[in-house]
Amino acid sequence: MRLPSTWRADLLAGAVVAVLLIPQSLAYAMLAGLPPQVGLYASLLPLLAYAALGSSPVLGLGPVAVLALMIAQALAGLPAGVPAEAGALVLAAEVGLLLGAAALLRLDALSSLLSVPALRGFENGATLMIAASQVPVLLGSAAVGFTLPDLLLSARHGGFVIASAAWGGAAVALLLLSRRAGPRLLARLAPLGLLVAAMALSAFTPTAAGVAQVGALPSLALPLGLPSLDKALWLQLLPPAALIALMAFVSSLAVSESLAQRRGEKLLPAAELRGLAAANVVAALSGGMPVAGSFSRSILLHEAGSRSRWTLVFVAAFMLLAMLLLAVPLAHLPKPVLAATIVVAVLGGFTLRHYGEAWRYARAEGLLMMAVTATVLLWSVGAALALGVVGSIALLIQRTARPHMARIGRVPGTQHYRNVERYAVECQAEVVGLRIDESLVFTNARGLADVALALVREHREKVGVPRRVLMLMAPVNHIDVSGLVALQELHAALAAEGLRLEFSEVKGPVLDRLKAIGWLERHDVSLYLSHHDGIQAGQHDLRPSLADMDAPGQL
Amino acid sequence: MRLPSTWRADLLAGAVVAVLLIPQSLAYAMLAGLPPQVGLYASLLPLLAYAALGSSPVLGLGPVAVLALMIAQALAGLPAGVPAEAGALVLAAEVGLLLGAAALLRLDALSSLLSVPALRGFENGATLMIAASQVPVLLGSAAVGFTLPDLLLSARHGGFVIASAAWGGAAVALLLLSRRAGPRLLARLAPLGLLVAAMALSAFTPTAAGVAQVGALPSLALPLGLPSLDKALWLQLLPPAALIALMAFVSSLAVSESLAQRRGEKLLPAAELRGLAAANVVAALSGGMPVAGSFSRSILLHEAGSRSRWTLVFVAAFMLLAMLLLAVPLAHLPKPVLAATIVVAVLGGFTLRHYGEAWRYARAEGLLMMAVTATVLLWSVGAALALGVVGSIALLIQRTARPHMARIGRVPGTQHYRNVERYAVECQAEVVGLRIDESLVFTNARGLADVALALVREHREKVGVPRRVLMLMAPVNHIDVSGLVALQELHAALAAEGLRLEFSEVKGPVLDRLKAIGWLERHDVSLYLSHHDGIQAGQHDLRPSLADMDAPGQL
Repeated sequence: MRLPSTWRADLLAGAVVAVLLIPQSLAYAMLAGLPPQVGLYASLLPLLAYAALGSSPVLGLGPVAVLALMIAQALAGLPAGVPAEAGALVLAAEVGLLLGAAALLRLDALSSLLSVPALRGFENGATLMIAASQVPVLLGSAAVGFTLPDLLLSARHGGFVIASAAWGGAAVALLLLSRRAGPRLLARLAPLGLLVAAMALSAFTPTAAGVAQVGALPSLALPLGLPSLDKALWLQLLPPAALIALMAFVSSLAVSESLAQRRGEKLLPAAELRGLAAANVVAALSGGMPVAGSFSRSILLHEAGSRSRWTLVFVAAFMLLAMLLLAVPLAHLPKPVLAATIVVAVLGGFTLRHYGEAWRYARAEGLLMMAVTATVLLWSVGAALALGVVGSIALLIQRTARPHMARIGRVPGTQHYRNVERYAVECQAEVVGLRIDESLVFTNARGLADVALALVREHREKVGVPRRVLMLMAPVNHIDVSGLVALQELHAALAAEGLRLEFSEVKGPVLDRLKAIGWLERHDVSLYLSHHDGIQAGQHDLRPSLADMDAPGQL
Repeated sequence: MRLPSTWRADLLAGAVVAVLLIPQSLAYAMLAGLPPQVGLYASLLPLLAYAALGSSPVLGLGPVAVLALMIAQALAGLPAGVPAEAGALVLAAEVGLLLGAAALLRLDALSSLLSVPALRGFENGATLMIAASQVPVLLGSAAVGFTLPDLLLSARHGGFVIASAAWGGAAVALLLLSRRAGPRLLARLAPLGLLVAAMALSAFTPTAAGVAQVGALPSLALPLGLPSLDKALWLQLLPPAALIALMAFVSSLAVSESLAQRRGEKLLPAAELRGLAAANVVAALSGGMPVAGSFSRSILLHEAGSRSRWTLVFVAAFMLLAMLLLAVPLAHLPKPVLAATIVVAVLGGFTLRHYGEAWRYARAEGLLMMAVTATVLLWSVGAALALGVVGSIALLIQRTARPHMARIGRVPGTQHYRNVERYAVECQAEVVGLRIDESLVFTNARGLADVALALVREHREKVGVPRRVLMLMAPVNHIDVSGLVALQELHAALAAEGLRLEFSEVKGPVLDRLKAIGWLERHDVSLYLSHHDGIQAGQHDLRPSLADMDAPGQL
């Protein structure tokens, strides 16, 4: 029997990725402060759930490093008596339900909450923090901590174990060597090969005496069941779950979108949201931990030729096989070797150059990026992510807090109207021509009347006494309620000075909304098809009636 | 000796406002769960601080109702042993320091964080909640609660005192009557007149037996000194302080801006921020509570003819006088009368019509407004304010999550380029004309390449095989780092299809930034002065050199 070619491609890609996923799933579970089998569980059924409901054929779903760090910090505050595994299940359930709610409310656009500098600053910080947290494991030191200062303080008191450091150092060296020297295939097989070699060496020789080992696993039966329904626990884990959900969605979408572009495929953000939601809910029901799309594994799926989401089904099958084969030998795996795979994997993603680029292009955004990274290292991933979101929005609002408006005049001999500051244009005393340069929304509508009145004053001083103010509305794509209130204030302020407000070139959707509430009639605002018509009209009577504006293609 | 006319006007306005401020300061202190003298203290030195550093001549600074409700909820969670007054001082200090930090960082634009629907929904909810919380006081019931359900549950068990209800009912009736029937002057004098009459009646007749009274005040010596420096207390009160600071700034700015517009004055938001910061710090040092600008008192200052910030100095002087005169008789004031002044004052500000208006214009914003009001009534003011901010931003991002782009063609016989969907225009196969309709920032830059590629595909199907993509950048006022990354992705995606990316009509500030990092040279992107030039150019060699673009007035 020959498999169809798509299936063969997917089977091959699945095998390649499983080889990378096995060590990563164990390592990221350890990073999250969870028993290693949790990582394996999270790499089984959740993949099937995403395959059923997601949309990308190349999303390397499963445990990921950044999420593991966030999980570790979230679980650090668990009340005594609650095992970390139980907390991880609740976290996964909350992440899944939050993503599901976002999918229902069609909030896939919320991935835009994280600007590129915030995301990059966060990922770099998390990368450094993950590497730093694994150095003690690598060296056999007992130092622990979720911030650099804590880690350093803790390291002062603990020594290190020479045998551990030897194992860890050798593992790092081998992994780096396989990356640098060999062909790409070698680099990809290296982590699994190293794991198998280390298990064998450790089990059959005395070289691992005194080195921390993974230890005997419980019988690897998939623990199906509901997570704890303790209300206090759910409430406590809700804030970190919200941040993990945001991060899971943003980082998965970033990688699947960029791959979809490269592959000329269409990606449905709503389907991604659905798939991630289902995967996390299933993780919560099958002994896992929160999952997302991994950057390195997704690239690998793409390069290995994955063609459909069946690949993930094959990955899951290989993971099941690995579980059965690895259950016993895993007990002998030295922890420093796992730590080495983490350190080498994440440090490849660290890029210093982004800071300089952002700083040179926009100082404030560069500063935000550094601040987010510093917050990861010195405080917590949660605080850093919150800073990234709030900081990005603050910068945006700071820049657009006032509407951008220009006084415009006619370019001589044309029907074009341009900024009087930049062009030699003609203005008529009787009418002030203004242009609003952006949509009128709550972030920039404040003080619309102020800005407009200042321009009217300028017109009065430089050109003459006006009777009308004609606003070119072509650049306005949307007016929200705050923008509408600002327009109302502008209308009142102009009326107080005896000036009429008029609009030209209002876009169709904007006009529809204004008409729906009868705003134009109520405020007796005239409309003109083109700014030139409005300037020329001069008299109230010449304006076209509202009914005329309905013809399609005119606005 | 005759006073200069400005001073006389300010003195008169000061007297008029003090008459309103005396009952309000007492009542809002009670509303905040604080002893009445705290309201008086907050109406003395903070006014001088604002007069020294603020900018509006008509801001009625002092205790306000909405803030009082927020303070009450913030102080409800104080640990045992910490008196409410001490908590109020810490709150005022934090509000002052936060506003001061915002002033230093020039974050006055952060007042845009609250959209009009969010603000109105919040104020309406707070108004209802304040009135509801005072009804039990009015009736002599012991019911308390910060949410409607709590209040109702609590009311089930407590009865009411007939004498209290009689006092409260009579006070409400008199206040409403003075508003409806008499001249405006009467309505303004009514609260103070009622207070004095009630104190006299209660002190010299037995009518107030069994009715809760304000009770003897401590000696009215201004308690100057530092607030508690307990770190845990500061940390606990920081989140509500941030929300109170935001509300204090937004509500004060809204009233002072609208009055400045009416008076034809220029308002400096940065100075407002400074003035409010100083007033709150001073309140923290002189036994007060967080303060802001009151809507009703500001209007009154304006109508009474205040001309400069000296008015506030006179108000403070009158308040001092009132303190000396009222110290003893205040003890006899029945609390139901104070509650009546609160209920009548705040319910005047409730407007139902806003919900319908918002709903008809933009359903989502109307829903947000209702949700914020409901959250005030059913949960807490803090949660409601957070929902307002997050909800507004979510709606904005949801609407603008993808860049708005159009394929454009030439209006026959002109040099104008318009949307091919709306106009009968001419397109050339060789070049795809695109227009980006808004600034490229992180909220909308996601998927720029996707949207552009779809338009290119459409061009290929309907017009012919292109070699170039010419983007009309006139509507782009700003490109942030996320927008720049999106442009980079677009460039790469086009290059992968063998297409050149070119720009026309790039705005000056946008061009400056792109040049600063050498982006255009690095990506070999051609620039054209006008879109028409770019379409006509047809050949790479014809593009003007970058140096040509520096001449002012060209872009």
